[in-house]
Amino acid sequence: MEISTGKGFAKHLEYFEDYLSKVSFKGDPTMLYEPVEYILLSGGKRIRPALVLMANEMFGGNPKEALPAALAVEVFHNFSLVHDDVMDKAPLRRGKPTVHEKFNLNTAILSGDLMLIMAYQCLDQLEAEYIPEALNTLNRIAEEVCQGQQRDMDFESRNEVSTEEYILMIEQKTSALLGVSMRLGAIMAKAEKKHAILLEQFGRELGISFQLMDDYLDCFGDPATFGKQVGGDILQHKKTWLWIACQALLGQEEKEHFEHQELKSKDDPQAWLNYVLNLYREKGIDNAVRKEANNYFEKAISSLEKLECPNSKEPMFDLAEKLLNRTR
Amino acid sequence: MEISTGKGFAKHLEYFEDYLSKVSFKGDPTMLYEPVEYILLSGGKRIRPALVLMANEMFGGNPKEALPAALAVEVFHNFSLVHDDVMDKAPLRRGKPTVHEKFNLNTAILSGDLMLIMAYQCLDQLEAEYIPEALNTLNRIAEEVCQGQQRDMDFESRNEVSTEEYILMIEQKTSALLGVSMRLGAIMAKAEKKHAILLEQFGRELGISFQLMDDYLDCFGDPATFGKQVGGDILQHKKTWLWIACQALLGQEEKEHFEHQELKSKDDPQAWLNYVLNLYREKGIDNAVRKEANNYFEKAISSLEKLECPNSKEPMFDLAEKLLNRTR
Repeated sequence: MEISTGKGFAKHLEYFEDYLSKVSFKGDPTMLYEPVEYILLSGGKRIRPALVLMANEMFGGNPKEALPAALAVEVFHNFSLVHDDVMDKAPLRRGKPTVHEKFNLNTAILSGDLMLIMAYQCLDQLEAEYIPEALNTLNRIAEEVCQGQQRDMDFESRNEVSTEEYILMIEQKTSALLGVSMRLGAIMAKAEKKHAILLEQFGRELGISFQLMDDYLDCFGDPATFGKQVGGDILQHKKTWLWIACQALLGQEEKEHFEHQELKSKDDPQAWLNYVLNLYREKGIDNAVRKEANNYFEKAISSLEKLECPNSKEPMFDLAEKLLNRTR
Repeated sequence: MEISTGKGFAKHLEYFEDYLSKVSFKGDPTMLYEPVEYILLSGGKRIRPALVLMANEMFGGNPKEALPAALAVEVFHNFSLVHDDVMDKAPLRRGKPTVHEKFNLNTAILSGDLMLIMAYQCLDQLEAEYIPEALNTLNRIAEEVCQGQQRDMDFESRNEVSTEEYILMIEQKTSALLGVSMRLGAIMAKAEKKHAILLEQFGRELGISFQLMDDYLDCFGDPATFGKQVGGDILQHKKTWLWIACQALLGQEEKEHFEHQELKSKDDPQAWLNYVLNLYREKGIDNAVRKEANNYFEKAISSLEKLECPNSKEPMFDLAEKLLNRTR
């Protein structure tokens, strides 16, 4: 979906982009460094580094000191994209050929490794007093993202996946890094631990809510405002929350009918799409996923309300509302 | 070649193995963690962690404090083996199927990533005061190893490579980690920087000398004592120091003759092997590579002689002599 993030966000985004434009990713041998620049400057939305800076401001930190931590999460995120694209055999990323397509498999593996290392190198730039906690935090999220990616791959070959497992997967694979980006910003502002934990929680819950709404909108969104092709997940047989929740509600006969429809989906994709959308409506999956997304949104808001910080939380509330396109 | 490393070394090896046996590499999802245990417990020689502990003892450190740094280099080394084996399409490692062969490509990439992260997680276990310098050191070597691997891959598709470029490649790909292992041991003993630098230099030079002697012995070693098949590098058309140095000495006609022999090498590998060995002898390459290895050995000894440390340097001199099978 199109992401609207509010004014508080835009300021941090600009500050980060200015910093990024002064960083060099060149080195020798060229073939190793070229893909790093290629993916990092291919126009990501820079959500994660902006979250670092936003969280840092909430806790009254010095944004200049937090910049290397912001770069660390952005470089880490791009590392994970490069290797995930290899594993998923994805041809395109941000409308451009993926690194393994543009260069080759070995380069994608090795330059990806280098980017993971570069994320850690960013931490070298922090004041020494922040390094142990920042390192521990990057270590934690890095392992979690790998767990999420493995879970995602495991799901492809499994028949029965629960919605709880699905939510754990999206939390580990994508939402956790949003939460941890905020946590790093808080760490760089010397926030008290219990408040930093609540902020990370907010980011994780907000991320899950966003992902569930994305799953919903992929099926039922307005083609005019949803950024991607509506129905894309169904046409790709992706095991989203809706798919999994629907499967759990099907009786034996319905299941067989579903499998039959799926088998002939290639012959008439539009008929397959309509069949699944109707089934989702019939089983109340459209409302169920919105309810689940709403639960996580409420949890997120509650976490944010609970935490205490010296500066205004309004930009963060604003971000949450804009992201989910709703009001408190 | 068979590695003889001396008594000083064996003690540290045992201490590390005992520590390693108590570390768990298990986790969820299982498919992500299984390959980590598989490669780490597949019986490497543990040279690098033992070097951390040996260096630590030289500078009067507490070996218990240095153990996580020793584990970091061992885990990092194994990460690099997993990804290198993918890139080189190697079927076997330590006599067992490589990770991508035993599991699959995606698992080798992702579990390899996890191992790189685990190496950094080991640094979390250090006392906070050591973390910034240890992180900086691991970051430095990690980037250098990637550079070495890229250089090695680049050489495959290049016609002209100089012996200087070859030595830089082996330094980055293998020797640097030996030097940095020692450096980490010194850091964990609060060694003065200039002496820690000399020790790293010693490790690098010793590593280069060892690699050059390995190249020599692969061609001219005694089959009874050399661990691998003598002549293996030539049969695999590997661009070793000898190959590169020889090419540089060939005139136009000799070069054409060499290429002709190479083209028909598959028909009669033994004839090809004899031809190259004779050419190496004729051009004095056998002596030249030993001389080059000797230069690096002398440099290494000189670096070790220059540095000052509270405890005996004898175990390190002993290691150098045993590794290169020679006396000072």
